[in-house]
Amino acid sequence: MRSGVTAIAYETVVGPQGGLPLLSPMSEVAGRMSIQVGAWCLQRANGGRGTLLGGVPGVQPGRVVILGGGISGANAAAMAVGMQADVTIREKNVERMRHLVDHFEGRACVLMASGDAIEENVLRADLVVSAVLIPGGSTPKLVSRDLVRRMPNGSAMVDISIDQGGCFETSRPTSHDAPIYVEEGVVHYCVTNMLGAVARTSTLALNNVTLPYVKSLADLGVESALAKDPGFAKGLNVLSGQVVHPAVREALGLAPT
Amino acid sequence: MRSGVTAIAYETVVGPQGGLPLLSPMSEVAGRMSIQVGAWCLQRANGGRGTLLGGVPGVQPGRVVILGGGISGANAAAMAVGMQADVTIREKNVERMRHLVDHFEGRACVLMASGDAIEENVLRADLVVSAVLIPGGSTPKLVSRDLVRRMPNGSAMVDISIDQGGCFETSRPTSHDAPIYVEEGVVHYCVTNMLGAVARTSTLALNNVTLPYVKSLADLGVESALAKDPGFAKGLNVLSGQVVHPAVREALGLAPT
Amino acid sequence: MRSGVTAIAYETVVGPQGGLPLLSPMSEVAGRMSIQVGAWCLQRANGGRGTLLGGVPGVQPGRVVILGGGISGANAAAMAVGMQADVTIREKNVERMRHLVDHFEGRACVLMASGDAIEENVLRADLVVSAVLIPGGSTPKLVSRDLVRRMPNGSAMVDISIDQGGCFETSRPTSHDAPIYVEEGVVHYCVTNMLGAVARTSTLALNNVTLPYVKSLADLGVESALAKDPGFAKGLNVLSGQVVHPAVREALGLAPT
Amino acid sequence: MRSGVTAIAYETVVGPQGGLPLLSPMSEVAGRMSIQVGAWCLQRANGGRGTLLGGVPGVQPGRVVILGGGISGANAAAMAVGMQADVTIREKNVERMRHLVDHFEGRACVLMASGDAIEENVLRADLVVSAVLIPGGSTPKLVSRDLVRRMPNGSAMVDISIDQGGCFETSRPTSHDAPIYVEEGVVHYCVTNMLGAVARTSTLALNNVTLPYVKSLADLGVESALAKDPGFAKGLNVLSGQVVHPAVREALGLAPT
Amino acid sequence: MRSGVTAIAYETVVGPQGGLPLLSPMSEVAGRMSIQVGAWCLQRANGGRGTLLGGVPGVQPGRVVILGGGISGANAAAMAVGMQADVTIREKNVERMRHLVDHFEGRACVLMASGDAIEENVLRADLVVSAVLIPGGSTPKLVSRDLVRRMPNGSAMVDISIDQGGCFETSRPTSHDAPIYVEEGVVHYCVTNMLGAVARTSTLALNNVTLPYVKSLADLGVESALAKDPGFAKGLNVLSGQVVHPAVREALGLAPT
Amino acid sequence: MRSGVTAIAYETVVGPQGGLPLLSPMSEVAGRMSIQVGAWCLQRANGGRGTLLGGVPGVQPGRVVILGGGISGANAAAMAVGMQADVTIREKNVERMRHLVDHFEGRACVLMASGDAIEENVLRADLVVSAVLIPGGSTPKLVSRDLVRRMPNGSAMVDISIDQGGCFETSRPTSHDAPIYVEEGVVHYCVTNMLGAVARTSTLALNNVTLPYVKSLADLGVESALAKDPGFAKGLNVLSGQVVHPAVREALGLAPT
Repeated sequence: MRSGVTAIAYETVVGPQGGLPLLSPMSEVAGRMSIQVGAWCLQRANGGRGTLLGGVPGVQPGRVVILGGGISGANAAAMAVGMQADVTIREKNVERMRHLVDHFEGRACVLMASGDAIEENVLRADLVVSAVLIPGGSTPKLVSRDLVRRMPNGSAMVDISIDQGGCFETSRPTSHDAPIYVEEGVVHYCVTNMLGAVARTSTLALNNVTLPYVKSLADLGVESALAKDPGFAKGLNVLSGQVVHPAVREALGLAPT
Repeated sequence: MRSGVTAIAYETVVGPQGGLPLLSPMSEVAGRMSIQVGAWCLQRANGGRGTLLGGVPGVQPGRVVILGGGISGANAAAMAVGMQADVTIREKNVERMRHLVDHFEGRACVLMASGDAIEENVLRADLVVSAVLIPGGSTPKLVSRDLVRRMPNGSAMVDISIDQGGCFETSRPTSHDAPIYVEEGVVHYCVTNMLGAVARTSTLALNNVTLPYVKSLADLGVESALAKDPGFAKGLNVLSGQVVHPAVREALGLAPT
Repeated sequence: MRSGVTAIAYETVVGPQGGLPLLSPMSEVAGRMSIQVGAWCLQRANGGRGTLLGGVPGVQPGRVVILGGGISGANAAAMAVGMQADVTIREKNVERMRHLVDHFEGRACVLMASGDAIEENVLRADLVVSAVLIPGGSTPKLVSRDLVRRMPNGSAMVDISIDQGGCFETSRPTSHDAPIYVEEGVVHYCVTNMLGAVARTSTLALNNVTLPYVKSLADLGVESALAKDPGFAKGLNVLSGQVVHPAVREALGLAPT
Repeated sequence: MRSGVTAIAYETVVGPQGGLPLLSPMSEVAGRMSIQVGAWCLQRANGGRGTLLGGVPGVQPGRVVILGGGISGANAAAMAVGMQADVTIREKNVERMRHLVDHFEGRACVLMASGDAIEENVLRADLVVSAVLIPGGSTPKLVSRDLVRRMPNGSAMVDISIDQGGCFETSRPTSHDAPIYVEEGVVHYCVTNMLGAVARTSTLALNNVTLPYVKSLADLGVESALAKDPGFAKGLNVLSGQVVHPAVREALGLAPT
Repeated sequence: MRSGVTAIAYETVVGPQGGLPLLSPMSEVAGRMSIQVGAWCLQRANGGRGTLLGGVPGVQPGRVVILGGGISGANAAAMAVGMQADVTIREKNVERMRHLVDHFEGRACVLMASGDAIEENVLRADLVVSAVLIPGGSTPKLVSRDLVRRMPNGSAMVDISIDQGGCFETSRPTSHDAPIYVEEGVVHYCVTNMLGAVARTSTLALNNVTLPYVKSLADLGVESALAKDPGFAKGLNVLSGQVVHPAVREALGLAPT
Repeated sequence: MRSGVTAIAYETVVGPQGGLPLLSPMSEVAGRMSIQVGAWCLQRANGGRGTLLGGVPGVQPGRVVILGGGISGANAAAMAVGMQADVTIREKNVERMRHLVDHFEGRACVLMASGDAIEENVLRADLVVSAVLIPGGSTPKLVSRDLVRRMPNGSAMVDISIDQGGCFETSRPTSHDAPIYVEEGVVHYCVTNMLGAVARTSTLALNNVTLPYVKSLADLGVESALAKDPGFAKGLNVLSGQVVHPAVREALGLAPT
């Protein structure tokens, strides 16, 4: 603020059809990565139960449960199905659920999300991926400590929702230096910035979505660019050193403008 | 020998249609695991170049080159294709190559193996998997140190052939405790006993193939069981304390019987 | 015999690569039909538990367990997978099992057959199809009455092996007029001549395989046709009124020739 | 009315994006079931021509014609394609048609619906499924008695539209006790409440879509719940014993309010 | 105009959800045809480099680059993927790109379009298809003469955008009589009316989309039909001999009405 | 012969499992090319009926009939299915037919070949590909002139068997300069050396299969190389200027050696 900067934040830019377009690459990367790091967690040297996600001919594949079928969840499911795991997706929205059934054509089991149902799946899972993102809110604790305790010993979980508090009661943020810990017998992967692990891919993905905005700024200047696109304008957080975004003001304890 | 034991070795039991049936689960597990550990090697914290194997929408997926299209190679390819990577298989046998083309239907590029061609692929690869197994022989060095040096910085390799000496000039055996090292800028994964990482799956897979032999021994006794199945008999290494397998005798410097 | 007939029996003609080529259409038809009649058995009006095999979006599909992965079993699995059911195949032969894994690519779970494993699957199944054919022998009783009793109430089974005695202890032959009965709470479909239900398709399928033999008989006469093809000759049961097939003689209590 | 009840009817609740969300599970179940009951109708003991829908290797599969490519039709097509039948879908809406082509990628033939074209398909069909639902209207008679007469003898039809009068001139409602009749040589399946046959699956499917409405009623009470969601409010038929839904009043001959 | 005609032009009719519905069949036909004519251009007798698009087992397939992932581009990609070519699509719109990734599941590489990236793909391509349509505008020159010169000798291009000026600097319109020419070593296919080559298919496709409008005209008369559908009204170019469409008036140098 | 040459002919070299390995690339290339040249023949400027093989959404795709399901036929079918045409394969060998059904899973209709059946398919076909190769014999005339006359006007045929006389009565050899002619209203493509059109791909494919033989000759010399591999020895046609191959001697009217 002292520098008089004008700042636009990725997290609050809204797309033409709604949504947060500058965050979606994070969802895609995290969703796809969740399966490969989950597979790695299941290796014995990492505390896992020694299950190969896709099995081998004649041996049961690993059971993967994905909580949430949005961008992250669908990308996770695509990878898990590709590795021939036994995949279940739990999704709350009926329309989205139908789209996923139509897309996966029986290769993944797509079910409605409800507390009991989730418990039933989690108790039999080798790997649970939480891909529940409540825009602008904190993630509900879908999996209690008690439920984690009853999961198979050496099973694994990847909590993509960790940036918003995580959806396991046992989740706590980790980093790429020490990405995992074992609690209640379950290997937890809760890295807050998963994109960093695949920086090359992530950077290109972010460029793809930010470039049009950057071009607009370069061509029109800040004022005109924001005036032309109301969703872009919602990204404006700081204007000439003054915090102008209502939610940010509120969060910082500043009076409304 | 002193204990007067009779020993049958997995490595020399021959199947009804040839082949080494008790080793094939090792090939299946190693092939499938090679992609998940390769994906992990490419993460930055492990020295990798930060490429996500399957890419994300709008970003080029990683290039995977698989040397050898036998059981290991085909299992590796199935996983890599499933993760939506850009996959090339190099295979020497024309019939086998046709089978793979028929199976993958354009999802993987299946090409003949020759020195020049391999070099061209390896130089552009994010991940190279060597899945070349010469039964009973040492693996040819398909990838020279010089070629490794010219690979992209931060690319990765998994040497499934390490038990037979490996097919990279830069390969040296590692263990699950310290599975990787970086040499010439390339992350090397050369764990000699890959099955150990997924012991649950591997054990079940081995049980599947050994059970019929065990039942035969239990039902018939050693002598009759071996007499009935000449391929099984080839597994006999030590009989009542005497080494009887010609190749083993030779390797141990014993005179032929 | 009194008529002095010369008779060649479908059941004993052997193909150029072994096998019983004139029986394989029966296996194909029965395998494919088993899923559609099994789906019908699960309807409530037939005593079934009211499960739709493929489920609908958001509802768990039916669990189908197929015992045996030969021609019948693979055809049954193809239909069940196509209907988006949750399919498990149990197969004893390792090579065959690998072929099925390769073919279904994770859409069906292909596992080794063993007593315990089968029990585990059967106890959770909506539909069990027995597709175990021991050429020239009677089918083993893979599913005991006790196990049937512990299956879910209203689940169903189709016993393709019924012509050879069936592989459920509770199986007894039925006909197209009254194809099903309920025993121990499980709907049983044990029609002995399943082909009759789809006579148009079955006839064409049989014609396809018999035509070359018929042409050979027409072109060469019986003697030359049989002389030219030793497998065809094995089909000879009665020659000029004399039973000549050793197994048939034995079964009829006639002295060996 | 005398009881002073307040009644909300499934049939008139409108979803956030339009449509009748509480009826869609009926469409999904009926669409998927139509193929399995159609396959059963084609069996000889039921009057059918003895065609196996998916054929067997070397024998032409059955021809399935699906009139309408909405939720019912697309679900029917998915099952028929899965059973390897020869499937044609006739759909009037160009955008929907393109979606289906994109989805089925040549596995089903998706064509525009017009009178002549439908006749051409129906005359060659083994199984015709009518999946035409005109919301709030009676179904057009797409298939005349004359056309039924010219269909192949022993062919079959399933009239999903029977609840709205059916789209065959020869359709008349049947029940699960006697689900089929033969008219003009064609096996007719016109059960009005197809969901009842698979009550377990249907109930779960209905729960999935009604649960959010039930929760809203429980949390907010009737008045607030309806006030908050105008589509839900359209479901209100009777309020404290007074019929309030305009169309229902009209149908009952009551004066407009 | 002298005849007092009332004329409605395909090119300006707008659909209920926007778009130009009467032009989309042109896009579908051109997209699908582009691959078969491109394959033909690559044959040696036509000046091509003698590459078979799908390769054969063991030989690298042809590289196909498709500029634009709209209706034309997606249809071209479907055919190229079906022929087992190595396919890359360049698309500018992020949402559309995600849809294509979801649909092709790794069988085509879908990347963002940018100048540098396009150059990299074009320089390695066997076949480039330009499927960029800017509604109502002239096509940008995405591929310069210089870039064409640096393409592999004997490679080919199909310029679907030729009706709007083409997106290669070296494009000039051709006809079905002499569809191709070689410039800068690259075989150019720039037929302006690609639909004419497959007139049977094109006519049926056009009928499908025009029929509802024709019926509306026949049922309601011009005035009412246009009044009822504002998008249809936008198709009105000439009314009783007077040019009424603003853009057409402008293009003809007539004063605005 | 005068030069005293020693000559080995591609056409008579026999592979380890039988077959003519040096001719199979010809079959693969011709099979795959047959569909792209067939699609081109159907264009109106070439005399075709103007049908796009894969149709477009809402329009019936072209009907492709492939006579013979060997290497050529299967490769042709793969391309036609990939282009979303309506594909029927006629094959005589039951085992091969089952393999094709298993592979195509309902995407192509695989039927037994018989005279009547072929006629039925050919009369409704847009494109007929003859892929019947009788090793060492002349091709049977499967399609009579009369049948050609009754094919739809403007339909097309590609006769891969033309090198062995062709399997249409109306076939006569053509060249790449003038590849097609119209007879009885049907466009005929009968180029004798189809590989020449895609010389780059063909050469690489031939290299793949000949290289091992060339290496064997280079390493061992002619005598030892042939002695070591009896199938290779069958390729020997001329030895030091003397024709030694029995069939060639006979064809040239030389006395047996």
